[in-house]
Amino acid sequence: MPVTLLIRNATILTMNDAFDTVEGDILIEDGRIVAIGSVQAPALAPAIDAGGDYLLPGFVQTHIHLCQTLFRGYADDMALLEWLRTRVWPLEAAHTPRSLAAAAALAAAELVQGGTTAILTMETVHDTDAVFEALEPTGLRAVVGKCMMDEAGEGVPGRLREATRASIDESLALASRWNGRGRGRLRAALAPRFAVSCTRELLEEVSRLSREHGLLVHSHASENRDEVALVRQRTGLGNIEYFAATGLAAPHVCLAHCVWVDDGEQAVLAEGGVKVLHCPGSNLKLGSGLAPVAEMRRRGISVSLGADGAACNNRLDMFQEMRLAATLQAVRRGPGALTARETLAMATREGARALGLEHQIGTIEPGMRADLILVRRSEPHVAPDPDPYATLVYAARPTDVRTVIVDGDVLVHEGRPTRWDPTEVAANARHEARALATRASLPGL
Amino acid sequence: MPVTLLIRNATILTMNDAFDTVEGDILIEDGRIVAIGSVQAPALAPAIDAGGDYLLPGFVQTHIHLCQTLFRGYADDMALLEWLRTRVWPLEAAHTPRSLAAAAALAAAELVQGGTTAILTMETVHDTDAVFEALEPTGLRAVVGKCMMDEAGEGVPGRLREATRASIDESLALASRWNGRGRGRLRAALAPRFAVSCTRELLEEVSRLSREHGLLVHSHASENRDEVALVRQRTGLGNIEYFAATGLAAPHVCLAHCVWVDDGEQAVLAEGGVKVLHCPGSNLKLGSGLAPVAEMRRRGISVSLGADGAACNNRLDMFQEMRLAATLQAVRRGPGALTARETLAMATREGARALGLEHQIGTIEPGMRADLILVRRSEPHVAPDPDPYATLVYAARPTDVRTVIVDGDVLVHEGRPTRWDPTEVAANARHEARALATRASLPGL
Repeated sequence: MPVTLLIRNATILTMNDAFDTVEGDILIEDGRIVAIGSVQAPALAPAIDAGGDYLLPGFVQTHIHLCQTLFRGYADDMALLEWLRTRVWPLEAAHTPRSLAAAAALAAAELVQGGTTAILTMETVHDTDAVFEALEPTGLRAVVGKCMMDEAGEGVPGRLREATRASIDESLALASRWNGRGRGRLRAALAPRFAVSCTRELLEEVSRLSREHGLLVHSHASENRDEVALVRQRTGLGNIEYFAATGLAAPHVCLAHCVWVDDGEQAVLAEGGVKVLHCPGSNLKLGSGLAPVAEMRRRGISVSLGADGAACNNRLDMFQEMRLAATLQAVRRGPGALTARETLAMATREGARALGLEHQIGTIEPGMRADLILVRRSEPHVAPDPDPYATLVYAARPTDVRTVIVDGDVLVHEGRPTRWDPTEVAANARHEARALATRASLPGL
Repeated sequence: MPVTLLIRNATILTMNDAFDTVEGDILIEDGRIVAIGSVQAPALAPAIDAGGDYLLPGFVQTHIHLCQTLFRGYADDMALLEWLRTRVWPLEAAHTPRSLAAAAALAAAELVQGGTTAILTMETVHDTDAVFEALEPTGLRAVVGKCMMDEAGEGVPGRLREATRASIDESLALASRWNGRGRGRLRAALAPRFAVSCTRELLEEVSRLSREHGLLVHSHASENRDEVALVRQRTGLGNIEYFAATGLAAPHVCLAHCVWVDDGEQAVLAEGGVKVLHCPGSNLKLGSGLAPVAEMRRRGISVSLGADGAACNNRLDMFQEMRLAATLQAVRRGPGALTARETLAMATREGARALGLEHQIGTIEPGMRADLILVRRSEPHVAPDPDPYATLVYAARPTDVRTVIVDGDVLVHEGRPTRWDPTEVAANARHEARALATRASLPGL
């Protein structure tokens, strides 16, 4: 007998091509949406009464570093390159499988409870099995890349330096061990850190192997002006031009940030079908800049959203990122440059596109996997709530998420996680973070 | 016998001049802090065990429009002058005492539950008694100004136009009725809307009468480039210069926004001791700009924080405003331009200074009024929490506020309001907002 779940009386934001809204029910069978509207429920199907609350596709955060969640509060008030060299790299080098597992569990707890149902994440150089192992029982959908960095740059600790061949072998081994695990929820990606950390040989191999093995590529590009200058100094090319020259301007390539991309480089992104991963919270906090999101979208580039790591955000909160995305374009290009509805599409269906999962998640349609969230409308801070998109993008917050379903499994019910104790997860994270900071012996801490 | 309350085992952020942190207890008697540290409790004093959570001064939001809370979601994706003329003014003109009371109750519910214990608010032209009446039972500390607008500008509905004399008389009558009510928590201010809405005669009278009666002046200035251009066209002066020319560059004058203030005008603000009320969330959403907060602070100008109205924010959330204030200066001037600790000071003690209440609230010291909040540290999204200021400014959120105390009264206990039912407040607001929008017959709604 199929596993069924009925959600009744919801205000369903389908996020389909027509942005249809349906007042009604949804029937889920074996992890898939099978009916929407006025549904005849099978006898004895368990049911959730939504009471008119918003049901929408779960959020897809396309740029995250789970491993950095333990660094939250240890790395504030610094710009990108100093932040990497004096905080993030030493802390990553001090990670153990145990601290990585604590970081991933902490991140998953925050992400899922706040309505994020799928992520694309870049981890550190080593021990990425520990991250996959920690993620599997959480139920979160994830595409996970071990960070690849084979260029011995300034400030890179010995433990994070790796040979080109070893970097590739480890990445492919992770893919063969983990692709499709967790009933298909887990996949591996190839994740060269950024142009500065990688040899040209590595980037070219990543381009070739990603096509051969059908893997996503996840990297950073043009986040910060110093980074862009460094790439130009080394390669003679703009950062995006250099990615294109190594074969990495393609639809399966996901580039975080793209803050400093001029017209010519935007054209390269658009022609290649590259997916841009916009991280407004991180871009502000690291002082990186305001990305030309409105312009990139006008060229047809798919732009999705992510919090980036907790070391530079410090929240993993899609409500914050949506709001920032919309309002930063308002201040750049005038109010309405990125509407609330367009922003919610970036947080859901565009995220699914970046992950290559647009036929499985990101909209609410029969046949799609059931990655869904139910958002409460009864609290004072969202009233009077005349428009669902404005409410969700400008007013709502993570604690408004009542119910979170991934692949048909209820991971959060009435605001409470069903698979972990958040207080225990946080306490374990605090314990592991203290030990990690001691191992890293950060200057000035 | 005095009314006492003991808070035990707190991590107390005093926000005093030395930014002392104390691990210990606080004793409150008759609304005042009487002891801090290791406190001998009176027999039978009721006690709250903080369990190590952060105890800090309640937030002071220095620029709010309670009456606009019912407009949340009705006025999105527009710039200032269009937003005023097609949404805010028609909606304000349609307010009744009953809808104003609903708006004030809704705002107070969100504000207090999120840790805001004092506000400076500008209401609409009429019926401000209804706002005072709605605020009194909530326990919130508030300085309330009836909006003054005696210049018949473009798009101003008839009901919002008033004669200069009537505007002044009504403002002074409110002060004589309400100053000191609510055991001293309520006060009135003089609130000319902005230079565009007021005659020069009104501004000069406000300057004179505010000194004579000891009232704060609360206005907007230099929020938007069109507004600045309009003032220059009419007066031949820069907006801040014009305020100064009418006598309104003084320490009891609180000017919201000050986004477009050049060096010369910043010098006028600094010399006059004007208080600047920074509203980063509103400035982004209306596309107004990024205020030169770091530069103004370097000149010694007191800058505090407010959400502005829910019609242009749409949150009344000090955690969001703190985070935005710090990170927008990071993107303008580099990370560290406004540190987390400085930002928390803006949200507490600088707010108290703007209200002229720095000897009563805004820091935790013996003799101060007990306006205090307790913030939970046990949840995943703040872990590992190595630094209190980074946690509060970059990671925490309104639902982390466990306990809110104003003037010694516990208004929120373990996250629940003690004086109102939030679901009822929200339901009443939704009902009143629908009727209000119908009365206003907004174009396109």
